[in-house]
Amino acid sequence: MIAEACWVNGESVSDIPVTDRGLAYGDGVFETIRVVAGEVTLADYHWDRLVASCERLGIAVDITVVQRSARRFLAGREVGILKVIVTRGSGGRGYNPKECDSRLILSWHNLSVYPATHWIEGVELYACSLRLALQPALAGIKHLNRLEQVLARAEWDDDRYAEGLLQDLNGHLVEGVMSNLFLVKSGILCTPDLKLSGVAGVMRQWILDTMPNRGITTKIKADVSLQELRQATEVFICNSVNGVWPVLAYAGMQWMPGSVTRQIQSAVFGVLHV
Amino acid sequence: MIAEACWVNGESVSDIPVTDRGLAYGDGVFETIRVVAGEVTLADYHWDRLVASCERLGIAVDITVVQRSARRFLAGREVGILKVIVTRGSGGRGYNPKECDSRLILSWHNLSVYPATHWIEGVELYACSLRLALQPALAGIKHLNRLEQVLARAEWDDDRYAEGLLQDLNGHLVEGVMSNLFLVKSGILCTPDLKLSGVAGVMRQWILDTMPNRGITTKIKADVSLQELRQATEVFICNSVNGVWPVLAYAGMQWMPGSVTRQIQSAVFGVLHV
Repeated sequence: MIAEACWVNGESVSDIPVTDRGLAYGDGVFETIRVVAGEVTLADYHWDRLVASCERLGIAVDITVVQRSARRFLAGREVGILKVIVTRGSGGRGYNPKECDSRLILSWHNLSVYPATHWIEGVELYACSLRLALQPALAGIKHLNRLEQVLARAEWDDDRYAEGLLQDLNGHLVEGVMSNLFLVKSGILCTPDLKLSGVAGVMRQWILDTMPNRGITTKIKADVSLQELRQATEVFICNSVNGVWPVLAYAGMQWMPGSVTRQIQSAVFGVLHV
Repeated sequence: MIAEACWVNGESVSDIPVTDRGLAYGDGVFETIRVVAGEVTLADYHWDRLVASCERLGIAVDITVVQRSARRFLAGREVGILKVIVTRGSGGRGYNPKECDSRLILSWHNLSVYPATHWIEGVELYACSLRLALQPALAGIKHLNRLEQVLARAEWDDDRYAEGLLQDLNGHLVEGVMSNLFLVKSGILCTPDLKLSGVAGVMRQWILDTMPNRGITTKIKADVSLQELRQATEVFICNSVNGVWPVLAYAGMQWMPGSVTRQIQSAVFGVLHV
């Protein structure tokens, strides 16, 4: 991904020391944020998750410093992606993370361009053969250990598939490579539980927080099976950069974008403008 | 870890671009090599594993370029650690690793100083509570996704423990945080199978390759239980930087350094000079 601009610890530089633990061990977290009219979208969600992820890993971060730096960095920028990386910095001794000062990396990227049909008609999902490991110590966090996603994304090279769907080692459905999964079953909006694997996306969380007040019952469900997906009346994927894409097809199953998906797309448009 | 010197792609610089996928996703591999009298120890093992790891991840690397660069980098250096990182570089689009040129990072570090008693009398192991995830797609590789090791190493802060021992999610013994595990049972030298988790250390591999010719029967064993460890007559840990440390105690169990451990230490001294 080309970076149009970078700041490291508040200074306009585009490099980090090779001793950074983000490189050495993936010892850090990140957020990929949609910026519209110079504003961070879903700001509270992104900052809350960044803080929670750092806490889980024991990385010290002052979120007000991150926010202030991001605000200055975004001056004069309009529409694009703000990527925020917080690493544990360059200290420690081997794996031992003692006495480190975290490092803040901001970078600015152009939005990827996707066909409008992804939102309107929906997308087809590739059935990834890689199975996500179960690791409760890391599940949910948007950390920098993302080789599973890299290997899964490398599995297909056909533009027919806009995204790939991942199961865990037990064969349960978890998420997309770069998105979360929702399905509508018996009128209830369900999304897989992410206590054992997966990334708890902020778009997913916003939908879970917002939709009950708009008449949609939501449920976080463990052990979502292929059978349950097959029985779903609507399926969609979402992330905080691209919003909501209805799912048309996956592994021989087919769905049509339904009214729940459309209602959520409409609500998401209000916050992401997509 | 402080780097005394760094090269990136053959040039003497100590930074990499923030767009490097090694930082973004831990998308790369590394080797930590003991250098003695300016020479790479266990050279064939390190280079073979680097090639095999890159192949597993689909990272293109020309090992002759790595070797040549390492040789030039080590000119004038005597004793220390050569760390070699190969990342997938800065290309791709999101997780998609297409069209990337790998990046070679060499750095030079002082050896950590440990008490001589670690080799002579042995060490006590901390019982880590973190359980390693099962991920056959990544098991064995010395890749840059090492948050499990960071979290495990952060569990103890008492110098009494020289190392921590890790079980997988099923409770089977796998390895140390920075070392591999061997145990002697009924006169046979066993080490856990690493098809589902763990790092296949080059010191471990050298021992498995070498010891059968010196009269020691070896066995790679799946599902090593605490009960089997308890029944072992000798236990030791090893890595390619520090060689072999006998294990004295772990989770209430106790052992003494035995003749098999001493024989292996003696053989390892011949290649590592430790």
